[in-house]
Amino acid sequence: MYENEKKSERIDDLLSHNLRIIQSDEVFSFSMDAVLLARFAGIPYQRGRILDLCTGNGVVPLLLTTRTKASIEGIEIQPRLADMARRSVSLNGLEEAIQIREGDLRELVQITGHGVYDAITVNPPYMPLNGSDIKLNPHQAIARHEVNCTLEEVIQACTQLVRNGGKVSMVHRPQRLGEIITLMRNYNLEPKRIRFVHPRVHMEANMVLVEAMRDGKPEVRLLPPLIVYQEDRNYTQEIREIYGEVSKGDSV
Amino acid sequence: MYENEKKSERIDDLLSHNLRIIQSDEVFSFSMDAVLLARFAGIPYQRGRILDLCTGNGVVPLLLTTRTKASIEGIEIQPRLADMARRSVSLNGLEEAIQIREGDLRELVQITGHGVYDAITVNPPYMPLNGSDIKLNPHQAIARHEVNCTLEEVIQACTQLVRNGGKVSMVHRPQRLGEIITLMRNYNLEPKRIRFVHPRVHMEANMVLVEAMRDGKPEVRLLPPLIVYQEDRNYTQEIREIYGEVSKGDSV
Repeated sequence: MYENEKKSERIDDLLSHNLRIIQSDEVFSFSMDAVLLARFAGIPYQRGRILDLCTGNGVVPLLLTTRTKASIEGIEIQPRLADMARRSVSLNGLEEAIQIREGDLRELVQITGHGVYDAITVNPPYMPLNGSDIKLNPHQAIARHEVNCTLEEVIQACTQLVRNGGKVSMVHRPQRLGEIITLMRNYNLEPKRIRFVHPRVHMEANMVLVEAMRDGKPEVRLLPPLIVYQEDRNYTQEIREIYGEVSKGDSV
Repeated sequence: MYENEKKSERIDDLLSHNLRIIQSDEVFSFSMDAVLLARFAGIPYQRGRILDLCTGNGVVPLLLTTRTKASIEGIEIQPRLADMARRSVSLNGLEEAIQIREGDLRELVQITGHGVYDAITVNPPYMPLNGSDIKLNPHQAIARHEVNCTLEEVIQACTQLVRNGGKVSMVHRPQRLGEIITLMRNYNLEPKRIRFVHPRVHMEANMVLVEAMRDGKPEVRLLPPLIVYQEDRNYTQEIREIYGEVSKGDSV
C-alpha cells in the first residue's frame, strides 16, 4: 500500500539531534510549530506516559525522545501518516520508546481508560471548518482544518486522557486564544504557562504555546516573547539553540 | 472635609502633555498601568461617550483628553479620590471634557441605562480579596484589592454599560488572564486585541492590556510585546514616546 504516494517521500535530518524523519510535501512535513511544542511542553523526564495527539508523521514524539526516558505514544487518524510515523520510528531504532497508534482521538479513552497519561502534547488543525477556503489535498486539509475533530473535541479528549495534575501542552494560532482558554477552563484544564511566538520583536504573534494543568489553580505565567528572527533576518540565538545550531552559551 | 488628608497631596506634571494631576502617596498616585491603558484603549476620537471605571484620581480621563474630543466620564467609589479627581479636572480647566461621578459601578446602569457608552476603560483592583495579606491603608486596599467589587462585577458592569460593537479596554495582571478571558466571553465581551507588557525582553510579562468588543466575533490579535526597559536600564523608545519624552521618529 501507499507505494504510489511513497514516491513523494524523502528522509530529512530532524534538527541536529541525529534523528531522521520521513516527510512528504504532498502529505505532511513538519513545521516550526511542532519543534517549539516539543521543546515547550512540560513532560516527565524519567518515567510515566506521554501522549501526542494529531501526531502526523511523528515529529513531536521523535523530538521528545531527546528530552525524556518516559514512554511516548502518538495517535494519528490518517493511515498514511500513521504509517509514515511508524517507519520513522523504526528508521531511528526507537520502537522501544515510541508507539504509534492509528485511530480517532475521540475514541481513545474507550481503549485506554480515563486519566492514564502524565502529559499530553497536541498540534491540532488550526483552521475552523467553514467549507469555503479549502483548496488542499485531503491529507493537508485534515492536518490543517478541523475536518476530523474540532478544537473542543481535542480539548475534551485531553481532559479525559490526562491524570489529575497532569499537563496538556498545545501549539495553536493566537487568533483563537479566546476559544482555547475558554474551552480549556470549561474542561478543567487550567492554563499555567503561555508563550507567544513573534516572527520579529515588532510584529504581532503568529503562534501561541499553552501549557494547562488538569484541575490546576487559576494562575498563569506569561513567559518572555519567543522571537524568531533578528532584525538582520537571521534566526535569533534562542531559535538557533532550539534547532541545535548553537549550544547554549555560544556567542552569536 | 479631607483637610487633614490634603496635607499629603502634591501636584505632579502628568507626562509632558501640559497636564497636572493631584496625587498623594498615602491615598493614590498613578502608575504606568494607567498610562499604558490610556494609550492602548480603542476610543472614539471626535464624538461619543467614554467611561472610565475605577477612575481613582482621574488619571485615565485626563490622559484621554489628549487623544479625543469625545465626552469622558469617570466613576470612583471612594469620595476622597473622586474629590481629588474633580479638583484635578478643574486644575486643568477640563470641566467641559470630563465629568467625575462618585458612586458604585455596580449601580451605574440603573442611572445611565443600558448600552449608552461607546467605549469603557478600566484599571480595576488586581488582587482577589483573600483577607490575609492586606497591610495597606483603606484607600490603598480598595484600589488594589477586590474589596468593593470583584473582577466579575467589573466585567458585568462593562457589558451592561457599553453599546453593541463598543469597546472595553482593561489593564490587569497576566496571572489572571484565564479568568479575564473566560469572564469577558461569558459576558459577551470578545477579546479582540491583547498586548503583554514585559519589563525586559527576556522577562515574563507583568501587565496585560486587553481590548474586547461587545458581541464581537471570536478572533483576537496578539500585538507585539511592549518592552519597558532596554538592556541598559533606560526606557525603550516606545515607552519614552508614550511618556512624551521623545517624539515619534526621534532617534535614541
